[in-house]
Amino acid sequence: MPVRGRFLTFEGTEGVGKSTQLQVASRTLDELGVDHLITREPGGTPMAESIRELLLAPRDEPVHETTELLLMFAARAQHLHTRILPALEAGRWVLCDRFTDATFAYQGGGRGVPEVRIAQLEELVQGSVRPDHVILLDVTVETGMQRARRRGELDRFEQEAVAFFEQVRNTYLRRAEQSPDRYHRIDAGQSLEKVSADVASLITGLVRG
Amino acid sequence: MPVRGRFLTFEGTEGVGKSTQLQVASRTLDELGVDHLITREPGGTPMAESIRELLLAPRDEPVHETTELLLMFAARAQHLHTRILPALEAGRWVLCDRFTDATFAYQGGGRGVPEVRIAQLEELVQGSVRPDHVILLDVTVETGMQRARRRGELDRFEQEAVAFFEQVRNTYLRRAEQSPDRYHRIDAGQSLEKVSADVASLITGLVRG
Repeated sequence: MPVRGRFLTFEGTEGVGKSTQLQVASRTLDELGVDHLITREPGGTPMAESIRELLLAPRDEPVHETTELLLMFAARAQHLHTRILPALEAGRWVLCDRFTDATFAYQGGGRGVPEVRIAQLEELVQGSVRPDHVILLDVTVETGMQRARRRGELDRFEQEAVAFFEQVRNTYLRRAEQSPDRYHRIDAGQSLEKVSADVASLITGLVRG
Repeated sequence: MPVRGRFLTFEGTEGVGKSTQLQVASRTLDELGVDHLITREPGGTPMAESIRELLLAPRDEPVHETTELLLMFAARAQHLHTRILPALEAGRWVLCDRFTDATFAYQGGGRGVPEVRIAQLEELVQGSVRPDHVILLDVTVETGMQRARRRGELDRFEQEAVAFFEQVRNTYLRRAEQSPDRYHRIDAGQSLEKVSADVASLITGLVRG
């Protein structure tokens, strides 16, 4: 029976460089010989990707907030049980672009869905499973929005106002403060080289520590 | 402000004649001049129909039971909040082909999903909303399966074994016994004429009563 792998998630607001830093983390793990899987939320399996498409598609019908929340967790259940947990049990590390912290931050902090509802679904879908480490890439909302605009990214979520992203960021920061052992805040307002160096150093520490 | 309409659901195992009896109920309401909406679960809005398609599509990827449960309730949230509740509030009656009782019967009784999980999602999605009347069309499983086979119906759910349907039927019957004021058991093993007469008479009583 292999040693269980570790479950790392990458979180942060728009334009924070999650995809780039996930690649940095992956290269670091490669250099240290750690077998790993890169995946993302919502998505990660064909069925979960179909749910993601349902969620992100522009449509005339207004999507009720409870519908959105349940679709998020449906995709997560599929992803967790058919892809993430089997990889961890086989001893692989898992690097995931967003997970339940994003639901607390976006649906909870951003849209005002009561935290207790999200926690209920988290418990229903995940039981006691939580990421071993959350890498929180943090920038001011102003910087993040500028970067997202420069990349021409504007989906249904990104059209929301700046005040919304302030709530999202504050929720991430609050959660990070509550569990300092599991959350690792990286200052993503620094130069790309510096952020990448911080992520590589963090990952190296997690492998060796 | 119009008097709130009544919310009627039609439940029962495969081959029980729900669609036919929904039409009988609709004609009866027409004759009595009661404005109403006919709809179905899972589905009922374009988005909920897309979720229904995701659920029913044959696929290589095994669908985790929690994924299925959350998709069911995601479709239900959308259907309830964007279609059923607005109709009821406008004073229309709503006739719905299956609702949460089907989840208790199929996912709970049939597949062994703990009832408490379903009840949790019911509360999260519906708050205190429950059907005013549940019309339970009841036949023995043997009769029901024969009818479904004759109609050539075989989707993912209908391929399940007879033992499964026994559990489903028993769950329906148990729920009906627990709330005799809200549940109306119709013997669907009778001739079509007799079943239709029973349904028409029940609906007439509900309108006049």
